[in-house]
Amino acid sequence: MRTDTKVEGDSPYKLFVLQLAVWVLRGVSMVAYANNPLCGALILAALCWESPWQCLLGTLGVLTSTMTAVILGQDRTKVSEGNHGFNGMLVPLLIGVLSSAGDWYWWLLLPSCLGSATCVFLYSCMASVLDRWDVPVGVFPFNITITLYLLCTGPDNPYFPHHRTLPLGVLEPNGTELAVQEVIRGSAIGVGQIFVCEALGSSLLIVGALLVYSPLLVLHALLGSGVGALAALSVAVPHDFLYSGLSGLNGALGCMAFGGLYFTFNWRTHLFAVASAFLSAYADIALSNLLGTVGLPANSWAATLTTPLLMLMTGTLSSYRIPSSQATAPKCDLRCCRQWEDVHTTGTQNADV
Amino acid sequence: MRTDTKVEGDSPYKLFVLQLAVWVLRGVSMVAYANNPLCGALILAALCWESPWQCLLGTLGVLTSTMTAVILGQDRTKVSEGNHGFNGMLVPLLIGVLSSAGDWYWWLLLPSCLGSATCVFLYSCMASVLDRWDVPVGVFPFNITITLYLLCTGPDNPYFPHHRTLPLGVLEPNGTELAVQEVIRGSAIGVGQIFVCEALGSSLLIVGALLVYSPLLVLHALLGSGVGALAALSVAVPHDFLYSGLSGLNGALGCMAFGGLYFTFNWRTHLFAVASAFLSAYADIALSNLLGTVGLPANSWAATLTTPLLMLMTGTLSSYRIPSSQATAPKCDLRCCRQWEDVHTTGTQNADV
Amino acid sequence: MRTDTKVEGDSPYKLFVLQLAVWVLRGVSMVAYANNPLCGALILAALCWESPWQCLLGTLGVLTSTMTAVILGQDRTKVSEGNHGFNGMLVPLLIGVLSSAGDWYWWLLLPSCLGSATCVFLYSCMASVLDRWDVPVGVFPFNITITLYLLCTGPDNPYFPHHRTLPLGVLEPNGTELAVQEVIRGSAIGVGQIFVCEALGSSLLIVGALLVYSPLLVLHALLGSGVGALAALSVAVPHDFLYSGLSGLNGALGCMAFGGLYFTFNWRTHLFAVASAFLSAYADIALSNLLGTVGLPANSWAATLTTPLLMLMTGTLSSYRIPSSQATAPKCDLRCCRQWEDVHTTGTQNADV
Repeated sequence: MRTDTKVEGDSPYKLFVLQLAVWVLRGVSMVAYANNPLCGALILAALCWESPWQCLLGTLGVLTSTMTAVILGQDRTKVSEGNHGFNGMLVPLLIGVLSSAGDWYWWLLLPSCLGSATCVFLYSCMASVLDRWDVPVGVFPFNITITLYLLCTGPDNPYFPHHRTLPLGVLEPNGTELAVQEVIRGSAIGVGQIFVCEALGSSLLIVGALLVYSPLLVLHALLGSGVGALAALSVAVPHDFLYSGLSGLNGALGCMAFGGLYFTFNWRTHLFAVASAFLSAYADIALSNLLGTVGLPANSWAATLTTPLLMLMTGTLSSYRIPSSQATAPKCDLRCCRQWEDVHTTGTQNADV
Repeated sequence: MRTDTKVEGDSPYKLFVLQLAVWVLRGVSMVAYANNPLCGALILAALCWESPWQCLLGTLGVLTSTMTAVILGQDRTKVSEGNHGFNGMLVPLLIGVLSSAGDWYWWLLLPSCLGSATCVFLYSCMASVLDRWDVPVGVFPFNITITLYLLCTGPDNPYFPHHRTLPLGVLEPNGTELAVQEVIRGSAIGVGQIFVCEALGSSLLIVGALLVYSPLLVLHALLGSGVGALAALSVAVPHDFLYSGLSGLNGALGCMAFGGLYFTFNWRTHLFAVASAFLSAYADIALSNLLGTVGLPANSWAATLTTPLLMLMTGTLSSYRIPSSQATAPKCDLRCCRQWEDVHTTGTQNADV
Repeated sequence: MRTDTKVEGDSPYKLFVLQLAVWVLRGVSMVAYANNPLCGALILAALCWESPWQCLLGTLGVLTSTMTAVILGQDRTKVSEGNHGFNGMLVPLLIGVLSSAGDWYWWLLLPSCLGSATCVFLYSCMASVLDRWDVPVGVFPFNITITLYLLCTGPDNPYFPHHRTLPLGVLEPNGTELAVQEVIRGSAIGVGQIFVCEALGSSLLIVGALLVYSPLLVLHALLGSGVGALAALSVAVPHDFLYSGLSGLNGALGCMAFGGLYFTFNWRTHLFAVASAFLSAYADIALSNLLGTVGLPANSWAATLTTPLLMLMTGTLSSYRIPSSQATAPKCDLRCCRQWEDVHTTGTQNADV
């Protein structure tokens, strides 16, 4: 450990546990592009509020994958930022929520731990490919792992049974009228769906947790979730898809990445974020229909595929691109943002000269 | 605009409209690897002859995507060559032809414009990846966009209904004998199918339009279309697939790219073009069967996937490769071609020395 | 030919035939990561023992693809190492075994030759992409070609009929108890399944052939096959999948690549090889279920996809990576291995300094 030498009188073991806790909490917040232990703790609280079992699974997952990354000797800076935790957290959450064996089915801990560990391998391997284009890996490993798990264990598996996902088109047509307040509620839950939360209360707590980190991020998350609902309405998707917040999940993820995170915030990149949310939302509906034919959920495949692609955009927008290594928190206010932009421009000019 | 300063007494607005018209017509011809406004105008005439509605959709698409590219600040040279137009043109053409709501169903303009604009985003992003290998993007964005559109709106969509595509194997077996003259007719229509034309007359007009640009290109288009018919016959595909020209579409596209366009023309690259046509045609039959199981058409996925792959061929053939930036018209006669080859060889030697 | 000048009094034609025979035998052994003409000859004998027809198809395939590579002017060093042979060998073997027209159905020679030739094109093209990451192409071309062939010719094709593959989950549930000795037998056959052998005798002969080349390779092959059986048991796959050795195929391939071949052998890389075998085996079960829904077998897709991915692993393990160009035989004994490691470390240090 790099900081061991600095501390005296404290046992290295105790210190490691403390550090690990910070890494784990950072990893939890990284799922929603945040990077803050407090934010992570609030999110875990929200998960615990909705379902202690899910909270246990998630915590176990993020612990397993962070420990695996340490054992595999991954880059310590990346581990300490929680980069190896967030994929490992999502896998057990999805395994838990899709399982048809009910809560506290302890056998699920086995695939949860294995799946979380697998994410570290996949993350490390994919990063060495995608780094060439300075594109983040995001939740690619999670999506691959959960899809493999669901394909391996079919719906009727004797050990690990799970609900079969149907394509959206197969569901019964919309007989009733659209309830607008339900759609707004669904848009809020859409942000919670990033952490597989389906209740309004815990979703709002997650929104609050992200607010601690960056109001701009929350704005884009809610905006993206709303865009997702709009996209779903435009192709007459069954209303349940809107009410459950699933329509907003990919829109929110697609919007957050471009709203001040990987691109400096201005009105151009703001419009780009909206466009990205639309593309991500439509891709999600398409993938839900496609993967539903083989009984698979679309998860966050759409955002995972469209976000890295759109980051490679050339033209005017590419000049606002923030290099991955410098991408930290979305700037909270415009004044600050403008300052950053000045610094950035000056820095680039210096680098060019 | 770069050329604004050169012109005096003319309003910049008027000039821009004129320029835009040229870019649009170039974009139209680029679908078939040509790059000539006159050729583009003739192709639009052929489309109009078959169906004015399709012509309107196509023109709207190419306009939308070219304008989007200008607004997004894409490389002006690429825009002026029509590079951002051809994908945007194909999306509305396919949306129109697959729609089961009949012609002049005005709601289709909405997905047409959105789809065309999406192509610009995808083109720009994919180009920055594929440029590493000096491989053209081709109609990748079109294929992605139309597949997303068809998956989003299932066959029974209340707003945008479309015909469901069946896999080739499901169609009724070939009871009747093969009509040879129909197959030849289908091979000619195969070239028209590049622009989603299903009539012999307009297909022949398109062949004529391409003849204006380059006879070598037309030769390879017809050859590839014939190869596609041969490939389809060898695996006993239903005859309708041959008669409609769909069997020739991917063969033609696969053959054209290698016949003097991205490789200097000689007997080796000619054989390579034939091999590429066979691979592309078989891949098309395979993808038609695969995508048909989820109700999707194979479009030009086969040529889109095999052409960039085969361009990366190493060995003797790679020495005939023309860098993408220099790939213009296929040389019309062998004498000219040989001269180019000499220049090319000398140039390469100089570069090496 | 490079060695022509060395030989006097011998006709170049005769020499070429001799050389070609060595290349072909090397190509045969390359399927199982070996590179030894004697090993290849023993494997061909094993194939002939099980089915002379399969042996004929395999030999024809490896001959066709090696000759195609020579004609296409591929890098002679690669050809002489058998790099262009092993994909071409597998295609006819699979075409033969999946055909429902019985042995000695001579029409199969046509797709066999075409498919083998296609592999050379695909290998050459994919190599120029994957070389950027120093990742071997492996049996990617074979998997693409056989999947295209099976998709082109559906199960009811009048010329080339073949058995329809069902997803694992559809098979009847496990009514009887698990026969342990059958599972062990299946694990041994799993190594034979690399060459599409389904009999114990010929599988053991193949194991013996590999033993000639490298005991470490055989150890990992059997270990991987066993891991595959374990993985299959953990998700309650039908017992036939275990008994036929299909469960072990991808596990064996995934394990062999990391056991001393592309990574120096030590206990860390040994554990990594086991992890790779697990990932490959689970991915195989997942892909069997997925591809089975459209009637396709999973072949060695799982190992083909996971092996190159895991090679890109960063962290501690990457320091044991052997560059592709230097990857030869897995070291047979640990002493030798340790020497190599010393040399390797010294070499790296020198290079760094």
